[in-house]
Amino acid sequence: MIKIAVDGMGGDHAPQMICDGVMQALNAYKNIDITVFGDQDKMAPFLKQHERLHIVHTPYAIDMAEKDVVKVYRTNKEMSMFKAMQFVKDGHADAFVSAGATQAIVVGGHFIIRRMKHMKRVAIAPIIPSYDKKGRILLDGGANTDFKPEHLVEFAMYASIVVKEVLKREHPTVALINIGTEDKKGREFDIEVHELLKNHPTLSFYGNMEPKDVVTSEADIFLTDGFTGNIVMKTMEGTAKGMSMVLKREIKSGLFSMIGALFMRKALKNLKQSLDASEIGGALLMGFDHIVIKAHGSSDGFAFKNAIRQAKEMAEANVIQKVKDALEAYQEKA
Amino acid sequence: MIKIAVDGMGGDHAPQMICDGVMQALNAYKNIDITVFGDQDKMAPFLKQHERLHIVHTPYAIDMAEKDVVKVYRTNKEMSMFKAMQFVKDGHADAFVSAGATQAIVVGGHFIIRRMKHMKRVAIAPIIPSYDKKGRILLDGGANTDFKPEHLVEFAMYASIVVKEVLKREHPTVALINIGTEDKKGREFDIEVHELLKNHPTLSFYGNMEPKDVVTSEADIFLTDGFTGNIVMKTMEGTAKGMSMVLKREIKSGLFSMIGALFMRKALKNLKQSLDASEIGGALLMGFDHIVIKAHGSSDGFAFKNAIRQAKEMAEANVIQKVKDALEAYQEKA
Repeated sequence: MIKIAVDGMGGDHAPQMICDGVMQALNAYKNIDITVFGDQDKMAPFLKQHERLHIVHTPYAIDMAEKDVVKVYRTNKEMSMFKAMQFVKDGHADAFVSAGATQAIVVGGHFIIRRMKHMKRVAIAPIIPSYDKKGRILLDGGANTDFKPEHLVEFAMYASIVVKEVLKREHPTVALINIGTEDKKGREFDIEVHELLKNHPTLSFYGNMEPKDVVTSEADIFLTDGFTGNIVMKTMEGTAKGMSMVLKREIKSGLFSMIGALFMRKALKNLKQSLDASEIGGALLMGFDHIVIKAHGSSDGFAFKNAIRQAKEMAEANVIQKVKDALEAYQEKA
Repeated sequence: MIKIAVDGMGGDHAPQMICDGVMQALNAYKNIDITVFGDQDKMAPFLKQHERLHIVHTPYAIDMAEKDVVKVYRTNKEMSMFKAMQFVKDGHADAFVSAGATQAIVVGGHFIIRRMKHMKRVAIAPIIPSYDKKGRILLDGGANTDFKPEHLVEFAMYASIVVKEVLKREHPTVALINIGTEDKKGREFDIEVHELLKNHPTLSFYGNMEPKDVVTSEADIFLTDGFTGNIVMKTMEGTAKGMSMVLKREIKSGLFSMIGALFMRKALKNLKQSLDASEIGGALLMGFDHIVIKAHGSSDGFAFKNAIRQAKEMAEANVIQKVKDALEAYQEKA
């Protein structure tokens, strides 16, 4: 049985959509057991009795817009998110899932779950849409601005294990996001990362990738520093949003196009689904000593269910232990 | 009369599409006079006699894939691009337009046209599509990796003059591309640029902009370093390309959607046009002592005509002199 701790109060539509996702996941996957942390009274209308569902009442929750999470942590550890994390840390669950604010999860993760001994930083790795519908791992999307090249190599090793063991793709390849495909392109930082990846004993290096291939590239993992990764992620989001808005405007501009849109309803729905991150799940937080999944803040029940599925698959594949073993072997040689 | 020097041999579809664009521009704008530099025999089939058209035969042209432009320049100055630039430098024309390789234009620009005394670097400023169809100036898209914060401020001043005098928008605003909207977000570099923009005596600072608003933001100018700008530009390109491919695949997947696409033909065409950079023109190279416009390498006649129009409008508005005056006043105070 895979045990999962859920922060019931995190997310723009919590607790309703979180509870909804929990119920969907319990019904879909027979080998999971979920403990939800949150305000019992607020959650009750959206949860049903279930033999594999447990509720821990926590009267407090972190505001999605909280700016000073460290201070909150220092003054009140009874928050739903922190209690759920502690539950994982204490060995009662295999994974933590929340749609709460990224910064709160990162801070709580550092204080409570703690970093893996073998990783010096934590990366946020969203799964971004791809033409082949399989998704790609982008990292770091977490806006870290002070990485060293070796940190990126550790992330690449972690992500390669996820692609192979969880997404079940043989021979995962790592592409370095860059402004050109030639070896010596980019900043000093990118050139150093390129060298490390090229000479790495176990990673399969795809080479540099320009983001004009960000939806169509064959590579499985797109690697870059936290500033650039965040910019790529948000530019994809902005361009997709802009295109959708233009398409809607043009459809509404005439009778023919409105009729056309009716005929094309399925195609347009598939377009939306192909580009919809909620189909794939949440972002992985790589670097903590346990599995941490961050669902999108605006998650509905379906999206949150998929984030729980990801946590389950990560636990089933025993990813954390495999990452530790791989990093230990690599760091001993270095 | 505005005089324009055109590199007839630069671009993936040169000289045919370049000549085509030149003829379109001559017919559309009565106050321009164009001198085309290139291989007379190769261009002849695509050019017609015109009283405002002049041809200068140059037997050599730079290969689009040339890696060592500096060496080419040192050994052969008789290239079409370099001759056209020299023509501008010598005062025979007001502006230079080419669809040749960016790096060649940048190198030739530095050696022949030279940098403006008041600007320490050169930026490449593509005009990117926007929801309101007016376009936005993104800079630097030129992949420069060694900017100082003050260089970006100079670019912002140049771009603001272009938006006001050429694009005729009152009160141009400058947004700093960043990973968050709060003042202290980003790298040390971004925080410094933010401070300079905020306290600038003439610029109108919009604040930080996350690229999830890259198609919909109200700001006129999107400012960032050359690495990040290039990444944003290519991520927009990649996402738009990916979405178009998915849409095409979904349309082809069934009879209903194919019928729908027929009804929606106009709407889909408008979608494409809204996102098509060739509607708007080429990229501005900001920092040289004369007007330099870089049309897209894959320009057809229509796109190249629009690049010529841009050069004409820049010259009509006397942009170079206005930028010099503004920078001189600013730098005297500093």
